[in-house]
Formats: sequence, C-alpha cells, structure tokens
Amino acid sequence: MELGSRLAGTVRPGGRTAKVRAAVLQATQDELAERGFHRLTMDQVASRAGIGKTTIYRRWGTRVRLVTDLMRELAERSLPPPGAGSVEDVLMASARSVLESLTDPHLGVTLQAVIAAAVSDEEAAGALRAFYDRRIGEWARFVDAAVDRGELPPGTDGAELIRAVSAPLYYRLMVVRHPLDETTAARSVARALIAARAGAFVPT
Amino acid sequence: MELGSRLAGTVRPGGRTAKVRAAVLQATQDELAERGFHRLTMDQVASRAGIGKTTIYRRWGTRVRLVTDLMRELAERSLPPPGAGSVEDVLMASARSVLESLTDPHLGVTLQAVIAAAVSDEEAAGALRAFYDRRIGEWARFVDAAVDRGELPPGTDGAELIRAVSAPLYYRLMVVRHPLDETTAARSVARALIAARAGAFVPT
Repeated sequence: MELGSRLAGTVRPGGRTAKVRAAVLQATQDELAERGFHRLTMDQVASRAGIGKTTIYRRWGTRVRLVTDLMRELAERSLPPPGAGSVEDVLMASARSVLESLTDPHLGVTLQAVIAAAVSDEEAAGALRAFYDRRIGEWARFVDAAVDRGELPPGTDGAELIRAVSAPLYYRLMVVRHPLDETTAARSVARALIAARAGAFVPT
Repeated sequence: MELGSRLAGTVRPGGRTAKVRAAVLQATQDELAERGFHRLTMDQVASRAGIGKTTIYRRWGTRVRLVTDLMRELAERSLPPPGAGSVEDVLMASARSVLESLTDPHLGVTLQAVIAAAVSDEEAAGALRAFYDRRIGEWARFVDAAVDRGELPPGTDGAELIRAVSAPLYYRLMVVRHPLDETTAARSVARALIAARAGAFVPT
C-alpha cells in the first residue's frame, strides 16, 4: 500500500491502461519484497493485482520484464542529480543517492533483484546496462562541468568517476555483505577524488 | 568432465564419501553452467551425479548449501596470494586474481550465482560474507607487511585497500554490465594506490 501511494504520482492518471500498470507494478513490488525474485511468478502477480493473467502475459511477457519495468518506474521517483555544484558536492550527492537507493525498501530490493536476475538472464542484463548507463550519464554531466571549470584535470572521465564512487557501495552490500552507512559513502568519495585530482581518471 | 579433472586434485581420494562429493559437486557445476541458479534443482543434480536423492538431501539439505560447498572447493583451487612483494605487486596480483576468478568459466559462474542467491537467501549471504572475509584477510596480510616496511602510511587498513581494488571489477561486471579486462584491473590498482599513499585508507 505504501508503494501504491509512491507509484500513484508517476503513473499517468486516467485511463484503464495506466490503472492496470499501477496495480501490476504494485503487486510485483509486494511479491518481490515478500518472496524474492526466485519465487516471483506471473500468476501470483496477476492474482494479487486482481488483473487477468492473459493481460499480464500479453503486456509484459516475462517476470524479468515486469521487474525491469518496476525498476524504471521507481528510479524515476528517486532523487535527480542536484544540479551544479563543486565536484566534491556532486560526488557526495551521487554517493548518497546510491546509498539511499540501495537501502530503500522498495527501490533497493528491486535493484538487487534485477542485478541477481542479470547473472543468468540476458534480458535482465541488458535492462540493467541501459538503466545504469543512463543514470550514470545524468550524473556525469555535472562532473564534466566541474572539469570544464578546472576543478579536475582536463580529460577526466566523469562517468568513470561516478562509477568509481558507486562501486564500493554495491560491492560492500552485495558481495562482501557488510552494512552500508554514510561513512562508507564519504570514504568512497574522498578516495576517488584524491585519485581524480592526481589525473587517474584521464584515459591514457 | 573438465571440472571433474579440476576437482579431482582437491577432493581427498579414496573413500566412497569423497567420491560422492566429487560427483555431486561436478553435477552441481554442470547444472549451474547450463541452467543457472534459478533453475538448479536438487533432483536434477542427483540424477546427473547418479547418486540417490536421499543422500544429497541428507548431506547438503538445500541447493544453496550445494552451491556454497562448490564455491569453497573451487576457491581452494584458485591461485593463492603471491607471497611478499611491493604493495603495488600485491595489489596488482589481487586485482588479477579477481579478474581471473570472475571470468573463469567455473569459479566465475559459481561466485556470481552465490552473489545472486544471497540477495534473497540469508544462508547464501552468510556463506558469501565468510568466504570474502577469509579471502580478503589472506591478501591483506601482504598489504599489512608493506605498511610495516613503510611503503604506505602507518595505520593503513590493508583489508579495506584490497576491497577497494576489487570493488570496481565486481561492479563493472555485475551491475553496470560492461566487459572486464586487464586495463580495468590496472586502473583500479593505480587509483586505489594513489589514495592509499595519501593516507585515505587510514581510519579516522
């Protein structure tokens, strides 16, 4: 129900198509949170949403498509890049955004489910690549602007710097399975920034 | 069959118990490579290994336990830390070890399957945490020795530095889904080392 209110603002109001989508994404989120991706089934989602199975199969086809649609929807609700700022401000805002996304009970569960699905599903892998390339590109513009202002060495790869700030957070949460906090985010920014100022993000 | 020969050297020879384990881990690996974790079943593993289902259920209980047993077995076959060396040599060897592990057709598939399983399975998460804490600890000793020799600022956290070198490789392969190569590994080492020399791995 909580997600219902969150999704309500993003799904275009009105038509039956939009209402079906909102109900189905809500049911997908609830099933994902309660049962995990392994045990998510199209039939359960249909039943929970109160929508006919044929509608769901026709519109989404597979559970991976359902979950990637949900991921995109939730991501649009998450905080956008903060606009201009010093490179340190931009990197800290991006690290906080990753921290919040990964620990958000809705978006975090969904992102991790898609990352897990992508290990053995090419369609999920493609959706993930497109999703992160777009999100990282949005943040990288602000790093590129800081490079243009002379805050970092000319030629610094902004997208690569955003990825370097994000990587330790994902790795810590999903691989070595240690808890994430604000300190993790701040350290990641401090380390990447030292390397960036020394020119280590200028491709050779 | 290829894995059979790889496992043959590590599973203690002789007794029936050892033979059962080798056959079961071999079948688990083959099923994992062909079908992925989502579609791995205990029954299929039993059938492929030619071992009774009750034996497999009694000894491993769940498919997560099967896969984590396989992960540990394969990891013992992977290259050990290189012994003493400059901190740059140690970090480069650790980055190469991660690169090789993740792209190895046996160990890479298995590690990624366990990382995926850990998203929705506490037992897999615990096995993963214990596995990486041990592996990272083995590598960190060589960084700690370099710190003692004065190559890095006193108090540098060796385990955290090893994690910082590994993180971009896992993140790139599993999250943003870009290909890994030797350049990725070398850049990760160069960036982490600049930050480490500046004292950014000394806890404050």
